[in-house]
Amino acid sequence: MAVIPQEYKNLLHTTALAHIATIGPKGEPQSTPVWFDWDGTNIRFSQIKTRQKYRNLLRDPQIALSIVDPTNPYRYLEVRGKVVRIDEDPNLDFINSMAKKYLGKDTYPWHQPGDERVIIVVQPEHTSHMG
Amino acid sequence: MAVIPQEYKNLLHTTALAHIATIGPKGEPQSTPVWFDWDGTNIRFSQIKTRQKYRNLLRDPQIALSIVDPTNPYRYLEVRGKVVRIDEDPNLDFINSMAKKYLGKDTYPWHQPGDERVIIVVQPEHTSHMG
Repeated sequence: MAVIPQEYKNLLHTTALAHIATIGPKGEPQSTPVWFDWDGTNIRFSQIKTRQKYRNLLRDPQIALSIVDPTNPYRYLEVRGKVVRIDEDPNLDFINSMAKKYLGKDTYPWHQPGDERVIIVVQPEHTSHMG
Repeated sequence: MAVIPQEYKNLLHTTALAHIATIGPKGEPQSTPVWFDWDGTNIRFSQIKTRQKYRNLLRDPQIALSIVDPTNPYRYLEVRGKVVRIDEDPNLDFINSMAKKYLGKDTYPWHQPGDERVIIVVQPEHTSHMG
């Protein structure tokens, strides 16, 4: 899998937000910013099961993410792909690792009792980029 | 048209990028950051006619845009709606106004001879927000 161009891989290690595009229940596009990480092969982000975007991805695993370089607003990477796995995050290990990346904190501070967290795993299939 | 909640309208006047979600030729979501403005009723952005996103919107006018508060990454507005008009921009008035907003310049510096610019006009129908 060498889908991500080498010269844009550094964007996968920034604390930029990824804006995800998903397909809603009536076939309409939806867009939301998320925290993300890159595990070397796939892009991953956290969701709670009550969220519209989670339900969208259960119905249609196609997704795109656009990531703008935090140091250069004219440089961005778009990754299109599909959700290949949805893992449970019962001990909040993943969302806590995201809090570490984005907030420098060991524990995600906004967890609510009853929130069921999952890890959405996106396999890149195609990219576009600018800048 | 009071679709945009009053307390999020200020996001429409920032120089944040809007990430647009559109539907590609195979029904797949696509995501791209764009400059935008708000004319009091609609969201507008510039495109050149050779761009995939322009062709997507000719085929399927449904669109979503997510805009993150530049001063607070935990606050965002998502606007869903449809393209209700596509205007020509033969004298580059609109893209130049975008250069004024985002770059403080009177003239868009990256215009290429032969680029045919249009103004995509999006009527908001639904919003979601956080923060």
